[in-house]
Amino acid sequence: MPSLPADIGEQLLARARQLAACSDEDGKLTRLFLSPAQRAASAKVAAWMGAAGMAVRIDAIGNVIGRYEGEHPDGPALIVGSHLDTVRDAGMFDGLYGVLAAIECVGALAREGRRLPFAIEVVGFAEEEGVRFGTGMLGSRAIAGTFDPAWLAYRDRDGLAMGAALSAYGLDPHGIGEAAKRRADVLAYLELHIEQGPVLERQALPVGIVTSINGSIRAEVTITGLAGHAGTVPMDARKDALAAAAECVLAVEARCRAEPGLVGTVGSLAVSPGAINVIPGETRFTLDVRASDDALRRQALDDILAAIRAIAARRGVRVADRVVHELATAPCAPWLMRQIEGAVVAEGLPPFRLPSGAGHDGMAMIAIADIGMIFIRCAGGISHNPAESISAADAALGARVLLRVIADFAPASAP
Amino acid sequence: MPSLPADIGEQLLARARQLAACSDEDGKLTRLFLSPAQRAASAKVAAWMGAAGMAVRIDAIGNVIGRYEGEHPDGPALIVGSHLDTVRDAGMFDGLYGVLAAIECVGALAREGRRLPFAIEVVGFAEEEGVRFGTGMLGSRAIAGTFDPAWLAYRDRDGLAMGAALSAYGLDPHGIGEAAKRRADVLAYLELHIEQGPVLERQALPVGIVTSINGSIRAEVTITGLAGHAGTVPMDARKDALAAAAECVLAVEARCRAEPGLVGTVGSLAVSPGAINVIPGETRFTLDVRASDDALRRQALDDILAAIRAIAARRGVRVADRVVHELATAPCAPWLMRQIEGAVVAEGLPPFRLPSGAGHDGMAMIAIADIGMIFIRCAGGISHNPAESISAADAALGARVLLRVIADFAPASAP
Repeated sequence: MPSLPADIGEQLLARARQLAACSDEDGKLTRLFLSPAQRAASAKVAAWMGAAGMAVRIDAIGNVIGRYEGEHPDGPALIVGSHLDTVRDAGMFDGLYGVLAAIECVGALAREGRRLPFAIEVVGFAEEEGVRFGTGMLGSRAIAGTFDPAWLAYRDRDGLAMGAALSAYGLDPHGIGEAAKRRADVLAYLELHIEQGPVLERQALPVGIVTSINGSIRAEVTITGLAGHAGTVPMDARKDALAAAAECVLAVEARCRAEPGLVGTVGSLAVSPGAINVIPGETRFTLDVRASDDALRRQALDDILAAIRAIAARRGVRVADRVVHELATAPCAPWLMRQIEGAVVAEGLPPFRLPSGAGHDGMAMIAIADIGMIFIRCAGGISHNPAESISAADAALGARVLLRVIADFAPASAP
Repeated sequence: MPSLPADIGEQLLARARQLAACSDEDGKLTRLFLSPAQRAASAKVAAWMGAAGMAVRIDAIGNVIGRYEGEHPDGPALIVGSHLDTVRDAGMFDGLYGVLAAIECVGALAREGRRLPFAIEVVGFAEEEGVRFGTGMLGSRAIAGTFDPAWLAYRDRDGLAMGAALSAYGLDPHGIGEAAKRRADVLAYLELHIEQGPVLERQALPVGIVTSINGSIRAEVTITGLAGHAGTVPMDARKDALAAAAECVLAVEARCRAEPGLVGTVGSLAVSPGAINVIPGETRFTLDVRASDDALRRQALDDILAAIRAIAARRGVRVADRVVHELATAPCAPWLMRQIEGAVVAEGLPPFRLPSGAGHDGMAMIAIADIGMIFIRCAGGISHNPAESISAADAALGARVLLRVIADFAPASAP
């Protein structure tokens, strides 16, 4: 096992702070796709990759790719990555942490002059969050060969199209197709990431093995009742659209509570006309349902919509629902989970498995490779927030687990 | 019993349509306080009062008052009235109908040259709805002597103060105090009005005897939970402010359903941050509780707030509530209810009693007189809406009941 510096945790936190200085907004961390902040952060990451012994290039979508050759040059690579972009007013570990740790792992190998039987490519993906053009995982989709050129016409909130923004940044939108890798060139995709949820913290565990990146479905529901005077319509003569929606919110909660690994959220709800003295005539709310299993999620959505329709029928209000987004679950490969489990156990920790509720680049990379993910604990499960926080000890542990997985990596046997 | 014209219902509807032409907005009925539409409507009403045999004046707040002397000039008067202003995009019967019917009743007496042992004053009140300056019942409060001169500084949405608007209209804001009547000059206050709710229609009855004008209490409630990622926070780790609020909405409904004469409404609810993929961290909602009895209403509010606090405690979210408005119930005088009941029975109808859920000028007039109210049925219980509708037959019946009450009126014995 190659050795990481004794203060690797502190070093990772220091580099994360340096990258947090690359921001498009004063006083907060916002690093958007194709912005000056991306350019500054990419330059730092590229320099660190070079110093760690990697050959560095930036591809046509803006991914920063460092390659550390194996024993046989130009052979297939184990890809280890995460993303370099952020949400608005972000924390400084989401994405970044995994890239920084992967660079340190390669650095540890390089310092010992050790080559593995395969190459390692560390990728800092461009635009996972999808903040600027509304579509995420652009960097990983380019590498996976699933980037749709139609997206080049998508515009940011200033009206600038993605294709024009790429050109202005100095990238070639027509070259994105060539960023794609072939399945034969990729041994697996690994990602180390902060959990962004409270599960590890509640288990008092610093590290977890991800079983799948949960799929999600989003729907919009409109309930139409009858607006009326809050003083004159007796309770039993009302068709109150908010009271009906309230029952629906609780039905979502009850259905999702009943099954581990299932989460359902009504995040937005609007009441019309919305006056203190008027019985609500219409409510519109959103539904976000996720699970580690697509069948479970679809069954949950079906059950929830059936419950909503039953509530509406009983209350004599009308209901309309519409699915607006669906993303399939990306299961992590059992053989990769076993190798990660070995590394976790070697660090003296129990091999705790959990699904990822949040989306990650692995959802795109699964198109060309088996995927594996390692989570580390983050304080309070808080993410997408400047309060995002990890300890130096956990940061170091995550890097050690990743290094063990890389150093001991055994490609899957051909089927 | 003096006789009304055979087509009195159609005549009342025709006059209501004529008044509906006096509007501040093209294509809809909006007649605001001190507007050109008020001036036009007041002129028509004054002319009809004059033609019905009344001496007409307009007081300092803009009330149109027609007086039909009794057998002994300058004696105390039975006041019969309702309001001439409207909400925005209003129906054409709310308020108006009662004034038009009262004019016809006096006309019927005058045609027969009949004087009663007391005077009748028909009042078309100015500004019951409170649309322009946010405060209602200005005309009735002026007559009741409860008009607060501080309100003259209230501004409309163009920034014009009420005092200046009165002067610009040609009225004397300093004369409002003189509009007040003394209790000794008023035998009672009667009002005929459309129900604005569905109770009579559901009872298949054209007319009802109002027992009280319900008091109301309004409160604002804020629930603070913890925002989080809709994908990563397990159901049992959430402090979802919307799920908590949903329980509260249903608790309001359940408490108010449990007691006849009680209504409770959550008319407005706002969710923060309100994104499809974020667990709600805060909800703010309004509460409007009304009952025909103040003790019942206060108990209901106490019970509802206790239930909300219990929900919050169980869910580990914080709750803050604040009462923003309270108006006491105005009970109708039993002796007036009995006289109205006699008139309803004389028309061959059952004497059905019901509270008024909506507010009316009687809430102000009760400061100087006992009050009585007659409701007629309106289609679907719909009001404050251009779809407001009454039948000619019901309009005629309401006028006949009012005329019987006036013609047979016996003042209360001194206590």
